Amino acid sequence: MADILEEVLKRVRPTEADQKRIERVASELIRRTKAACAKLKANAKPMLVGSAARGTWLRTERDIDIFILFPEGLPREELERQGLAVAREVAGPKGRERFAEHPYVMMKFEGFEVDLVPCYDVAKPSEIRSAVDRTPHHQRYVKERLTPELADEVLLVKKFMDGIKVYGAELQVRGFSGYLCELLTLRHGSFQKLVGAVSQWKPGVIIDLERSYADESEPKVLFEGQPLIVIDPVDPNRNVGAAVSMQNFAVFVRACQEFIRAPSLRFFFPRRVKLLNAGGVRRILKRRGTKLFCVAFRSPDVVPDVLYPQLRKTERTLVTRLAQSGFEVLRSDVWADFRAVIVLELSVARLPRVRTRVGPPITLEAEGFIREHLGSKETLAGPFVDAAGRVVFELEREQTDARRVLEQALAERAAFGKHVAEAIGRGHEIFEGAKLAKLLRDRKFREFISEYLAPCLPWYR
Amino acid sequence: MADILEEVLKRVRPTEADQKRIERVASELIRRTKAACAKLKANAKPMLVGSAARGTWLRTERDIDIFILFPEGLPREELERQGLAVAREVAGPKGRERFAEHPYVMMKFEGFEVDLVPCYDVAKPSEIRSAVDRTPHHQRYVKERLTPELADEVLLVKKFMDGIKVYGAELQVRGFSGYLCELLTLRHGSFQKLVGAVSQWKPGVIIDLERSYADESEPKVLFEGQPLIVIDPVDPNRNVGAAVSMQNFAVFVRACQEFIRAPSLRFFFPRRVKLLNAGGVRRILKRRGTKLFCVAFRSPDVVPDVLYPQLRKTERTLVTRLAQSGFEVLRSDVWADFRAVIVLELSVARLPRVRTRVGPPITLEAEGFIREHLGSKETLAGPFVDAAGRVVFELEREQTDARRVLEQALAERAAFGKHVAEAIGRGHEIFEGAKLAKLLRDRKFREFISEYLAPCLPWYR
Repeated sequence: MADILEEVLKRVRPTEADQKRIERVASELIRRTKAACAKLKANAKPMLVGSAARGTWLRTERDIDIFILFPEGLPREELERQGLAVAREVAGPKGRERFAEHPYVMMKFEGFEVDLVPCYDVAKPSEIRSAVDRTPHHQRYVKERLTPELADEVLLVKKFMDGIKVYGAELQVRGFSGYLCELLTLRHGSFQKLVGAVSQWKPGVIIDLERSYADESEPKVLFEGQPLIVIDPVDPNRNVGAAVSMQNFAVFVRACQEFIRAPSLRFFFPRRVKLLNAGGVRRILKRRGTKLFCVAFRSPDVVPDVLYPQLRKTERTLVTRLAQSGFEVLRSDVWADFRAVIVLELSVARLPRVRTRVGPPITLEAEGFIREHLGSKETLAGPFVDAAGRVVFELEREQTDARRVLEQALAERAAFGKHVAEAIGRGHEIFEGAKLAKLLRDRKFREFISEYLAPCLPWYR
Repeated sequence: MADILEEVLKRVRPTEADQKRIERVASELIRRTKAACAKLKANAKPMLVGSAARGTWLRTERDIDIFILFPEGLPREELERQGLAVAREVAGPKGRERFAEHPYVMMKFEGFEVDLVPCYDVAKPSEIRSAVDRTPHHQRYVKERLTPELADEVLLVKKFMDGIKVYGAELQVRGFSGYLCELLTLRHGSFQKLVGAVSQWKPGVIIDLERSYADESEPKVLFEGQPLIVIDPVDPNRNVGAAVSMQNFAVFVRACQEFIRAPSLRFFFPRRVKLLNAGGVRRILKRRGTKLFCVAFRSPDVVPDVLYPQLRKTERTLVTRLAQSGFEVLRSDVWADFRAVIVLELSVARLPRVRTRVGPPITLEAEGFIREHLGSKETLAGPFVDAAGRVVFELEREQTDARRVLEQALAERAAFGKHVAEAIGRGHEIFEGAKLAKLLRDRKFREFISEYLAPCLPWYR
């Protein structure tokens, strides 16, 4: 075990040269931001936050987050105006504006991806105006507690999360943020102790570092239904684990259980998904014998955190529509890059015309039910009584072909999410079965569909 | 309402000539049985029982039941030997031996179907040795209470049961016996009052004419799960309604509810089922779009009361086998005459190769489940974790073709019932879809399948 962890650290811990380089770049960015504030007469000060500021970044990561802190009294529009002006001044023409909860500027700088984020410098995190205002407090909280030894443990935790594919709180991933990894490490003191604790986790587990609540009853209600509840030490009203889906929660717990049983580098460095070509896709589809539909369209121009929830909503809507029409969806998934794809895999794509409509049990009145269907155009047979004593009709199924159900739902676009509905409205294609080969030229989609067709927990690959 | 009932009686009440004729034939049979007893020195006396003896037979019925009562002391083998000898003497060479709970002789005589049944003349019905020993007691109980006016009401009840196809306690029908119709009439006093009461029946209703039980708690336990509980006035340990299936119970209740709403001769004299020819069968099957399988074989040489339960058991076994293999059976039925047929109607006859095997939830250990399937020959994909946090594998389905599942089950013949298993073992055919047309030359099967393909409560036809 110790050997494995040592080996992992050797591979992921930034070298001294890496460290020097990021410090130099970050200092330069801070210097430029201060200069921009002075030049534009903005009463603000820059702050380096995130893993770069805490020495908890993985060697492969290239992110620098600079927050620009404005005084609390400033009106919101002023903050946005001045903040963006400062950020633009720093970024120059290469900067690109982005909108999350409020606007910020992204730039590439000496090989790093830099976010310049204006925020309020609030005294109490309970009085924040926007989620980004919490970040400086997170920075201070972690920085004060994180020894260099603990920073190494954080690296192990992050790389483990990365290896088992649950790292990242963005809505595409619905996993564990860097800050969450740091809090979990602080709570348990080491990667190994954390893994031991997690292997016993049940959904609804509560971690409250600062004992913000007298007992667990209050957070249990406050964050009901969320599998992982990690009370934010700087703001007890927030669950730092809110983004973690039940699926990723379970993957993390299973991974910890199995890592204890058989520690392996595979958890940190899983094998890559074997990329399928058109022939491979055809072979697997034939072997599975299912009916696969890929609904493809050009992604709407919104950030992934807006797009993915809408894609999943659309996916759910389509699954429900198909189920209501009698078609069992075996599995489904969504993916997006320049193009967006919703994958729906059905057991069968054609159903018989007849469907059974079961009426009230013998203990209830059936007159209305019988009158509704007797002699109706869609009635094929009935009324008769089944073995359980219920009145039954056999009706014509409206749609016996799954593709037609899908087409109809895509034409109506009800409960799809605004941007996805619009994008699908502008044009879409349905690729049936092996016809999805046409999409394989997109390497990222190829990765996605290769994984979809051979789903497997990463450490078992 | 009164007009309708009057019209029904006009059609079903035996004429005076009918009545004279049956009395003459019954007397002749009694006379012959007495003579046979004398000739064979059997210490027994004949008794006319059943609807012929009570004046509650429908004009179309042609049954005469003569019971031959032996003293209680006689050993069972002697009763069977002497009883059969007497019956054979009466019937002559035209008589045919039959075996129910014990042997009896059936004969055709002057247009009537005559049963000659040896039994014990027991003093207390609670001390019977065989179910037939109860019959003389039933005869006396009903005869003592049934006025000519009530006999007319019984005719209405019986014809109603006949019209809605729930008349007969034989296991092929699982409906209401003549004796049960008589008891229900005695209990409620008239057809109309009975119909009113039945329209309020719930499964588990208890009718206890002689108040044999202090309250309903005891019979509720004794006859648990039986929808209709009618305590036998001559033997409180017996439920006269035991044969009534939930299906027929519900049909009777629905018929009464609807007869009250809209009285009609249709309940007593429903339209005939429209007989389908091969073209009609093909048209309906095409419209339904289902996959119909008819398993046909020569009926084993046993009475219907033995055959039908075995056929239904076989039907259930096949439905379960198909369901376990993932095939949904929409509807199924059995039929028998010279030939026996089990009909199974499926939504789809082919399934994808892949099937989902869901493992334990996140709160339970999954090691055993994972070890069982990891790298196994039948594993197509997995382990992965689903949205609910459960570990999942995708496995190969053993059989993707419903016909092959059926063939395999018919080859094994486990849980089929002895005689049916043997008969199927001697040879069987599976007719798929419209190929069942080959069976249509059998007019009775044609009636059955015509009704199967357009099931409808008789009064709605």
